[in-house]
Amino acid sequence: MDIKNLQRDFELVRQKSPLVHNITNFVVMNNTANALLAIGASPVMAHAAEEVADMVQIASALVINIGTLSADWVDAMMIAGMAAKKKGIPVVLDPVGAGATPYRTEVCKLLIETVEPSIIRGNASEIMALVNDGISTKGVDSSDSSDNALQSAKQLALKTGAIVVISGPTDYITNGVLTETVVNGHPLMARVTGMGCTATAITATFAAINSNYMEAATHAMAMMSICGELAAAKAQGNGSMQVLFLDEMYNLTAEVLSTNLKQSADANL
Amino acid sequence: MDIKNLQRDFELVRQKSPLVHNITNFVVMNNTANALLAIGASPVMAHAAEEVADMVQIASALVINIGTLSADWVDAMMIAGMAAKKKGIPVVLDPVGAGATPYRTEVCKLLIETVEPSIIRGNASEIMALVNDGISTKGVDSSDSSDNALQSAKQLALKTGAIVVISGPTDYITNGVLTETVVNGHPLMARVTGMGCTATAITATFAAINSNYMEAATHAMAMMSICGELAAAKAQGNGSMQVLFLDEMYNLTAEVLSTNLKQSADANL
Amino acid sequence: MDIKNLQRDFELVRQKSPLVHNITNFVVMNNTANALLAIGASPVMAHAAEEVADMVQIASALVINIGTLSADWVDAMMIAGMAAKKKGIPVVLDPVGAGATPYRTEVCKLLIETVEPSIIRGNASEIMALVNDGISTKGVDSSDSSDNALQSAKQLALKTGAIVVISGPTDYITNGVLTETVVNGHPLMARVTGMGCTATAITATFAAINSNYMEAATHAMAMMSICGELAAAKAQGNGSMQVLFLDEMYNLTAEVLSTNLKQSADANL
Repeated sequence: MDIKNLQRDFELVRQKSPLVHNITNFVVMNNTANALLAIGASPVMAHAAEEVADMVQIASALVINIGTLSADWVDAMMIAGMAAKKKGIPVVLDPVGAGATPYRTEVCKLLIETVEPSIIRGNASEIMALVNDGISTKGVDSSDSSDNALQSAKQLALKTGAIVVISGPTDYITNGVLTETVVNGHPLMARVTGMGCTATAITATFAAINSNYMEAATHAMAMMSICGELAAAKAQGNGSMQVLFLDEMYNLTAEVLSTNLKQSADANL
Repeated sequence: MDIKNLQRDFELVRQKSPLVHNITNFVVMNNTANALLAIGASPVMAHAAEEVADMVQIASALVINIGTLSADWVDAMMIAGMAAKKKGIPVVLDPVGAGATPYRTEVCKLLIETVEPSIIRGNASEIMALVNDGISTKGVDSSDSSDNALQSAKQLALKTGAIVVISGPTDYITNGVLTETVVNGHPLMARVTGMGCTATAITATFAAINSNYMEAATHAMAMMSICGELAAAKAQGNGSMQVLFLDEMYNLTAEVLSTNLKQSADANL
Repeated sequence: MDIKNLQRDFELVRQKSPLVHNITNFVVMNNTANALLAIGASPVMAHAAEEVADMVQIASALVINIGTLSADWVDAMMIAGMAAKKKGIPVVLDPVGAGATPYRTEVCKLLIETVEPSIIRGNASEIMALVNDGISTKGVDSSDSSDNALQSAKQLALKTGAIVVISGPTDYITNGVLTETVVNGHPLMARVTGMGCTATAITATFAAINSNYMEAATHAMAMMSICGELAAAKAQGNGSMQVLFLDEMYNLTAEVLSTNLKQSADANL
């Protein structure tokens, strides 16, 4: 990726402080909000059917994350998603645990069909479950490699028109034809709950200020992975990792990005 | 404010360990509970219509925070609030995001009318939205200055009989006639999600042991702001700030309060 | 307890990484998930009636924690609990706040009768409230000593067939006839919200890999208490305690366990 564009988007987030509306899960709400505050965005969490369409009207992006879904929340996701589609702001879907239960897979498919998300970000197992019926996943942690899932991601992108992101040791960002990769990151990131959910919310933040969603998603994953790498170098375990990751995001500068970005040899594979 | 009274209330909280019943939002529950434990109070979170009136019977104060409201939760807030009013324990309302959606503003007005909270604590935008119809706010972060909101706070206090608190670089605590200010604090506090919600819960804690709610609210804001200032001096970002703030509250002494309290020149403005 | 068996179970958790399905409360979800990731388990949080029975099918243990219960969640607890009983995986019940309201006590009794949990873990007040009608507790913090509660724990174990665990300065683990004790630990653990809830989830993790639930529960409490003791030695307050505890769990080794385990003189009292 072009480091200049990454730096430009990072500075834009800081300047514009986009309001990101999150309908997300109970496990990660605190950390997602703090990550958005750390990068300079303004988070709001709201899930009542009575208000989600109104909240979308003042938001610059919408996150739909099904991590602790229930019927009422799915209704609100649909209402908010349709309002966001109508308004033309980006919608980023996180299909947490897709494949773990039929309910999760079905809700994801319904959301994809109705809301037509701009970007879908999941781990390898989740992305594969959205494409291949009958694939089952082990809870919310990935049991497949990102590399195996790339073909599924491309199919999903072509079928839905969404940019599809697979998080993993290598992150893949694809529109079905072109694929970008991010090779920064650290295994300790997978031992902190909700790190993927944070990636989804940061992706929405970048999509709020860059309507080239392929580029926005790539920049978001690069920024996440660089902060994760820097935090892991100081962390003593997953407790301090969670704290240090926020501090790295808070202190991030355009210079830190350029110093730490690893260019991947196999971009556009 | 009188430092002796601040110290007295602080020691009373430690001695009495009041049980504070919180009906609050999903984003902040963990940190609110830890902040209450740090200061020496005993937190309980309960929101089921089946039990909130019973929980109020063993509580010394009630927090109603609408941060992630939905219809069921609002019902429970009403039941708990009316039980607390009948029992005569302080009720502190946090109108999170009032003005961001009509639903939030309406629920706040309904709660104020029915429950008659003892204290209302919000940021500048939220307090203005409760007084001035048609004012809209940007999500849950304030887009107005505390100074601008003071007139609204006074109106709200006179109309409702509640003590009204505006959090910001300067905190204002008013009963509509007299106004106290707290000038301690640090901008980093606004970059940690739920710091305002913690202030509301701490305010309820002080109101549980001091029935002069104007004084209780002033003491709570002073204590919060001093701990925030001390934590910010050591923090590396909003991640460590959240952790250090709890540690400062945990280690707080009457002496630390007197060493760090900044007296404001414009008290009773 | 036999240190060799404790080490064996610890290593088994790391090797097998059991999937633990949690229906737990909003306050602790993030920390519970991180604690499970720290010890090497795979957490999943799911509470929708539409999916809990399916989630149980891929899980190795189920946690039912009533900390922020409501009617819908209780329905899901019943469905999941019955599915787990049928499947034969361990169910660990955390009766948070039993005795604080009649609703909590009644729901616990219903769950115990219907689901027949393998293990029940609570503080002294909660365990006593499940046995002695009319006993009331102060919120979710214990107001009784573990020693006083031991007779109640034995009665509860004999009546229900569950292993009963009382957390406190000394932890008691009893099947009604035999009683094990854990004397490691630190008072600072009680000042971090959800430490008991974490103990419950860790107990479920050990029960997933050791069908001798008496031994599994004892090992879980020993491991929790050792990590708590090590974290407290470095902590500056309850904020850093929460973070350091996760790091200690993450870095735990069989050697650390054997170096730090305190053998109790009064085992099998």
